Amino acid sequence: MNPVYDDQPREECGVIGVFAPNEDVARMAFFGLFALQHRGQEAAGIAVADGQGMSIYKNVGLVSQVFRQSTLDELRGHFAIGHTRYSTTGSSSARNAQPFMIETVHGPLALAHNGNLVNSAALREELLEQGVGMTSSSDSEVMTMMLARNGGAAWEERIKHAMERWQGAYSLVLLTRDCVYAVRDPWGFRPLSVGLLPGGGYAAASETGALRTLGCRAIREVKPGEIVTLSNKALVVTQAIQPMQPLARCVFEMIYFSRPDAVWGGKSVHQVRQNLGRELARECPAEADVVIPVPDSSVPAAIGYAAESGLPYNDGFVKNRYVGRTFIEPTDSLRKRGVALKFNVINENVLNKRVVMIDDSIVRGNTTGPLVKLLKDAGADEVHVRITCPPITHPCFMGVDIGTRADLIAHQRTVEEIRKHVRADSLAYLSLDGMMRAVESADGYCRACFTGEYPLPVDVETTKTGFEKGIK
Amino acid sequence: MNPVYDDQPREECGVIGVFAPNEDVARMAFFGLFALQHRGQEAAGIAVADGQGMSIYKNVGLVSQVFRQSTLDELRGHFAIGHTRYSTTGSSSARNAQPFMIETVHGPLALAHNGNLVNSAALREELLEQGVGMTSSSDSEVMTMMLARNGGAAWEERIKHAMERWQGAYSLVLLTRDCVYAVRDPWGFRPLSVGLLPGGGYAAASETGALRTLGCRAIREVKPGEIVTLSNKALVVTQAIQPMQPLARCVFEMIYFSRPDAVWGGKSVHQVRQNLGRELARECPAEADVVIPVPDSSVPAAIGYAAESGLPYNDGFVKNRYVGRTFIEPTDSLRKRGVALKFNVINENVLNKRVVMIDDSIVRGNTTGPLVKLLKDAGADEVHVRITCPPITHPCFMGVDIGTRADLIAHQRTVEEIRKHVRADSLAYLSLDGMMRAVESADGYCRACFTGEYPLPVDVETTKTGFEKGIK
Amino acid sequence: MNPVYDDQPREECGVIGVFAPNEDVARMAFFGLFALQHRGQEAAGIAVADGQGMSIYKNVGLVSQVFRQSTLDELRGHFAIGHTRYSTTGSSSARNAQPFMIETVHGPLALAHNGNLVNSAALREELLEQGVGMTSSSDSEVMTMMLARNGGAAWEERIKHAMERWQGAYSLVLLTRDCVYAVRDPWGFRPLSVGLLPGGGYAAASETGALRTLGCRAIREVKPGEIVTLSNKALVVTQAIQPMQPLARCVFEMIYFSRPDAVWGGKSVHQVRQNLGRELARECPAEADVVIPVPDSSVPAAIGYAAESGLPYNDGFVKNRYVGRTFIEPTDSLRKRGVALKFNVINENVLNKRVVMIDDSIVRGNTTGPLVKLLKDAGADEVHVRITCPPITHPCFMGVDIGTRADLIAHQRTVEEIRKHVRADSLAYLSLDGMMRAVESADGYCRACFTGEYPLPVDVETTKTGFEKGIK
Amino acid sequence: MNPVYDDQPREECGVIGVFAPNEDVARMAFFGLFALQHRGQEAAGIAVADGQGMSIYKNVGLVSQVFRQSTLDELRGHFAIGHTRYSTTGSSSARNAQPFMIETVHGPLALAHNGNLVNSAALREELLEQGVGMTSSSDSEVMTMMLARNGGAAWEERIKHAMERWQGAYSLVLLTRDCVYAVRDPWGFRPLSVGLLPGGGYAAASETGALRTLGCRAIREVKPGEIVTLSNKALVVTQAIQPMQPLARCVFEMIYFSRPDAVWGGKSVHQVRQNLGRELARECPAEADVVIPVPDSSVPAAIGYAAESGLPYNDGFVKNRYVGRTFIEPTDSLRKRGVALKFNVINENVLNKRVVMIDDSIVRGNTTGPLVKLLKDAGADEVHVRITCPPITHPCFMGVDIGTRADLIAHQRTVEEIRKHVRADSLAYLSLDGMMRAVESADGYCRACFTGEYPLPVDVETTKTGFEKGIK
Repeated sequence: MNPVYDDQPREECGVIGVFAPNEDVARMAFFGLFALQHRGQEAAGIAVADGQGMSIYKNVGLVSQVFRQSTLDELRGHFAIGHTRYSTTGSSSARNAQPFMIETVHGPLALAHNGNLVNSAALREELLEQGVGMTSSSDSEVMTMMLARNGGAAWEERIKHAMERWQGAYSLVLLTRDCVYAVRDPWGFRPLSVGLLPGGGYAAASETGALRTLGCRAIREVKPGEIVTLSNKALVVTQAIQPMQPLARCVFEMIYFSRPDAVWGGKSVHQVRQNLGRELARECPAEADVVIPVPDSSVPAAIGYAAESGLPYNDGFVKNRYVGRTFIEPTDSLRKRGVALKFNVINENVLNKRVVMIDDSIVRGNTTGPLVKLLKDAGADEVHVRITCPPITHPCFMGVDIGTRADLIAHQRTVEEIRKHVRADSLAYLSLDGMMRAVESADGYCRACFTGEYPLPVDVETTKTGFEKGIK
Repeated sequence: MNPVYDDQPREECGVIGVFAPNEDVARMAFFGLFALQHRGQEAAGIAVADGQGMSIYKNVGLVSQVFRQSTLDELRGHFAIGHTRYSTTGSSSARNAQPFMIETVHGPLALAHNGNLVNSAALREELLEQGVGMTSSSDSEVMTMMLARNGGAAWEERIKHAMERWQGAYSLVLLTRDCVYAVRDPWGFRPLSVGLLPGGGYAAASETGALRTLGCRAIREVKPGEIVTLSNKALVVTQAIQPMQPLARCVFEMIYFSRPDAVWGGKSVHQVRQNLGRELARECPAEADVVIPVPDSSVPAAIGYAAESGLPYNDGFVKNRYVGRTFIEPTDSLRKRGVALKFNVINENVLNKRVVMIDDSIVRGNTTGPLVKLLKDAGADEVHVRITCPPITHPCFMGVDIGTRADLIAHQRTVEEIRKHVRADSLAYLSLDGMMRAVESADGYCRACFTGEYPLPVDVETTKTGFEKGIK
Repeated sequence: MNPVYDDQPREECGVIGVFAPNEDVARMAFFGLFALQHRGQEAAGIAVADGQGMSIYKNVGLVSQVFRQSTLDELRGHFAIGHTRYSTTGSSSARNAQPFMIETVHGPLALAHNGNLVNSAALREELLEQGVGMTSSSDSEVMTMMLARNGGAAWEERIKHAMERWQGAYSLVLLTRDCVYAVRDPWGFRPLSVGLLPGGGYAAASETGALRTLGCRAIREVKPGEIVTLSNKALVVTQAIQPMQPLARCVFEMIYFSRPDAVWGGKSVHQVRQNLGRELARECPAEADVVIPVPDSSVPAAIGYAAESGLPYNDGFVKNRYVGRTFIEPTDSLRKRGVALKFNVINENVLNKRVVMIDDSIVRGNTTGPLVKLLKDAGADEVHVRITCPPITHPCFMGVDIGTRADLIAHQRTVEEIRKHVRADSLAYLSLDGMMRAVESADGYCRACFTGEYPLPVDVETTKTGFEKGIK
Repeated sequence: MNPVYDDQPREECGVIGVFAPNEDVARMAFFGLFALQHRGQEAAGIAVADGQGMSIYKNVGLVSQVFRQSTLDELRGHFAIGHTRYSTTGSSSARNAQPFMIETVHGPLALAHNGNLVNSAALREELLEQGVGMTSSSDSEVMTMMLARNGGAAWEERIKHAMERWQGAYSLVLLTRDCVYAVRDPWGFRPLSVGLLPGGGYAAASETGALRTLGCRAIREVKPGEIVTLSNKALVVTQAIQPMQPLARCVFEMIYFSRPDAVWGGKSVHQVRQNLGRELARECPAEADVVIPVPDSSVPAAIGYAAESGLPYNDGFVKNRYVGRTFIEPTDSLRKRGVALKFNVINENVLNKRVVMIDDSIVRGNTTGPLVKLLKDAGADEVHVRITCPPITHPCFMGVDIGTRADLIAHQRTVEEIRKHVRADSLAYLSLDGMMRAVESADGYCRACFTGEYPLPVDVETTKTGFEKGIK
């Protein structure tokens, strides 16, 4: 939308699963998705089962645009899964919206997926060679078709067999005629939790905030390698395959993706972000008069930095809440004259001050410079940029879009070169160790985007292309 | 829409295929579909191949609503197929829109289908048992999945193998990376023709009118059991399986479905309809002053009836061209007071006259009575209803919706009972023999809806249900 | 839409008025407009009064697109007027949609208008000088604002005062809190009739067909210069100003605009059109084998021509019913290759025949040539074009769009020149006298477009421009 | 939308005016409106003049929904005004959208209005009696019609005459063929400022943040009673009528409406809000562990309270950014079970803590209780509610919707009764004096909603009803 002020990593999806014996389950799935909207704004869908059959509705748009009362009313049953999607692929998005639903010899099956399989192309090729026709290029269809083929007396067994073949990140919810399954890869890349619904039944969701929105209690993580079964029986937990050692949770859920009310790996995301700010204050102090966040995601880190440094915290930017809904952009001529859609500065809070500006990350590097300029134009004496993670130098293959290596500003530039590029008076990144201290874990997190050490072998060629041939 | 004035059989689809080496093929497919709009108003779609990949767009609505300039612009290539759909299934229509496109080990494949397989449920069950997941309940997916599984060095061979298994009506167009195939079942139920495009290349279509709309010359029928290949080479015709003896062309294409400019079985539909009128005049004369058609489909038969009988031809009804676009209906109270949306009478043309009213068919019987009443209210002295086919007594399983046996007014009523029901002064149907004389053929046509003698074994249970379980 | 096949004069509007004490009046107005849809496809609106207040809904689109059940449900009351609009003005159409509703010191007032005031610009200037602000450029606002200013104890009186100032064509329906008025100019340019509703109350409409659609009986014309009041009292007829001598009914209502089921000036339009065909057969016979109409409007004239000449009548063209709903046109390249959207020829009916092609008028002359070519390409030996009115040589200022003088093909060309232009074997127009014989009237009709003799003084400059300045 | 969590006063509008000799003025007006979106989300419009004529586009929806690139492209010229609207009136909103444009004898005129005239009904009645028809019930039409009637050689003069008659709140932008006027009532109720555009020309806007978004420098307030002329000449300032003594600025702009980057009355809104928090901390301290804001408007006050009290500041609530876009609500059953759409608590930040919750106002009182409950459910030991203004006891007639007197929770309840109602451990409001200290002004502000002392006589009957009769 607004390339100048949009430089965050992009999450691929949010998923929700609900079994509610006494409630309108489609509406609950809707509210759950609504709380996960920040994880994907391109498409949304809900599939519902009533013990016999299954129905689905999905479309391009925000959750609130896709679903109306009448749509929800037609989705009747007590079992539901839902999905909200971010995608880079534009035109094909309607066809790739999720959940993905098929009929199998074992009955209907729907799947909603957060993550990315690194061996998806190979698995798809295998299916094609077995004479299966594929209607889309998504790894979700690969996953459902594998489940449809797998033998085994029960779905748990078939899921287990598939998990043995799947390489990469997957936090899944699966829907059958009379069950919802929550499934997580053995690396634990992406989050997934389950909770007890106050009116009976259970829910699963990418973030605990969505579970809390549904009133859930007794929330626990779906552990790496687990299948959790939500059905009429008590919550059944199966350790389908052994968790990897070490785990590879995505640290960016802590830094940026998750809503601050999430709890992940037993830790409050808001508190971890405050810790990141505190660590940053200790590692990279600044002689300054005020600490300001780049709203909204950097607010807790700025609070932490201010508390630790003793500098006062204040707002410096006003963010236009309606950005992201318009396709009309300032022309270059207007932009040069200072027309700025997304952020305004509260001049009086930065005028004649030395400002510490806290941001969560620098990916392509096109945002930081304009923000520094806005502060300088508003009369800030100095601008000291502090970033709550290390420089990002490698692409992600586990479901996060930070572009290719060439896109990353830190790939071939030093911190000093970046500082000059963004015209800050100083620039400092939190160290890898500092970041791990803030998340209170020496390992157990994937840090490949900072180090290039991927937790499983990645064939860049295959992962990026491969399944694009044929159907556009 | 308007149950009181809508009592025709319903066609399921129109298909188009184009190979045009020098033209914008999506636009040509659009114009072809536009000329086939009368065969289905619920959904439309076009798939295009460029020698490498394939792209598709389909949606619910009229051809003109589904496609805009920008949509067509994105469908680039020299090979295209298109589909316009009528369906009874309402909510699931978007998912069942055609063409149906999949990726196979042999490359991408798209299919558009007019007809109905009577063994579709059994074939689908077979696929599920082989571990294939199915995304829809349409027999089009069954057909594509079978083609994806079939061995054979070339598509023609794989298509041939599938034809050996398919039982029922299918006039198909298939699209691969660099070919369009036109395929017709060995009974020849539904029409399909091919022609030479003036700028180079070929086209296939359900009706010759659509081919003429594209400027085609040298039009020939795709014969029963044939595969016709449209590609860079000359038109290749393969007799994949032997035609059945006798053939089973749908006689309702002659009576009602096809546009009057169609040529089918070597005969002009408009002239056959005039013949139907002439035969009717001979078999069922009437003492009357004027012959009027129920517009639009009965116009040629009324012209024929008038010419043969020597009675003057005139318009009696005005049909509102905008009916079918509104969902707002007169209330019962308004209807009783004579509010009539679809037809008005030209009073002066029927006042104090004995009127012969020509209609093409009576299915459920809810239209004829109100039309007779309109004429009487306008001052007609007598109304003699003449129908250009025999009483319809049996349902169709080859792709035409005339409801179940219980829906058909002629199922358990005599002609005299029907006459009383519609309050006509006389009512007569064309005889089976008269109808066959008009189409100038002793056999070669399916007449099951008049006789109950189906050209292939039909298991009513399986054909109607079976694939509805599971996915709604 | 399709310039090559669209060469008719364009009507400006249809109006409806309903007082129904026991019915859902908005729904009745809807059905009345629906029957007048052919008079204007650009915008539609309905205003309803309940004795106290007034509500309105209008928008761009077909009647069926503008109104949904929920919209009609909000328009409650027993008095209604409606309007369907054709316009050339594109972008400003939403603002100029009718009815036009204002609040006045006498209470709310709404107006729907068919026609054109020739002194509208002068009247508007007068209002502006009196300090009235005008929100649109329509003469409907001029009319309502004049009514709002006029003194007089009752609406009838205020309407009468305004009629004395209005010069030109106006068939109006007016809505106040508790009355509908039907008003017609003293020349009687455009039609307007009233009738008795079967359930009680009255209706007024541009065409009798719309009244019949509502079940009306006892239909009579609103006579030139009359105000007819539809309210709780019996139908009150006031001769507000004297009718002009001679009258100036638009003869094109007979030839083309009105639906064939209309009765106007006491004559059946369908029968007048048959008469036009009969006169044409007498004046301009042709050595030929078949008479075919250009559908739909020329069908009755072709029936008359055939009956009078003794030549057989048959269909020659199939008209695509869906044309007018698409904005996608064949490219020049496709058009040259014969791609034709609107009409196909029924080849077998014209092959090796000498064809008389009956059309109602030639305005710009861009349609006739392509139609002749279609027939020749289909194998017609000769094509003899017969037109049911004289050459059109002058523009209309009374509410019909036939363009400026320069647009008219007959303005500076002889019939022979036009024949060559359209490549017909012969071309003949009905004479003015023949046309008047067919409408059975020596005078009483406006024939200005054929003769240039306007029934009232027209200042071309003022009428065409004037009110376009200022607000775009 | 979400009655449980939406208890703020509602602003009626934002206005923008631009004269830009070298720029695409419609696009600038769009960006200006975009920055004022928070002042009204129901409808938006822009009118543009090019020295000759005027064009307009307005519709229901957000600024980004109403305008597309193509719409803006058609609005060509160098003078523009725009409006974004909040309204309670639902169905009539499209007709009442602004700007309001008319043609007058002095040329075209458009007006966009923020405020409310208290004598609008009387002025409208006067116009009707003068024979003017009114198309809407808005006071904007009253204002334009008065301007159309007023004599005087120039627009400034006519505006001045009208201002002498207008009683109430009006911050206006007016557009003529070649001028934009910014006009403010002599009480100065609602804000309005002008600034110098970097590329030449001037802009006027409700808030300085919108002017900054356009890159404006040298921003000054339009003073009460002033007309500021934006045109080819230098900015011309006319003191049309004398400012009232004392002025009556709306204090709620400081407390809630304006974006925090606004400067009003020479003061930074963000800093005034911090002051409100500081005063509140001094007047109403609390024994507590953490200070949290109700996001977003109370953030600066909470920062101020924390700084003054020495208590730590932290986030306590997460606000779902997508609320306001859905019409789907939790059922009562779901709500009882804790389903909460708008806010989630960050449990870890309030668990076992004594919390000070800062909110800007309590109007109807339906929000505070649920928020307190959310905090308690999350484990807060105590919740101390602190409000940054006094209890609201009287309705507003100057353009802010806080309902009628009966709607206001503080109208007949003591603070202690309200505290019990919301189940807080303590509740305190800032005093009137404290509030005035924070805005650094002993008078000059309208405080009628707290005191009932209106700055001009208000006839409640007339102001609320009156112009609703007649046109619905």
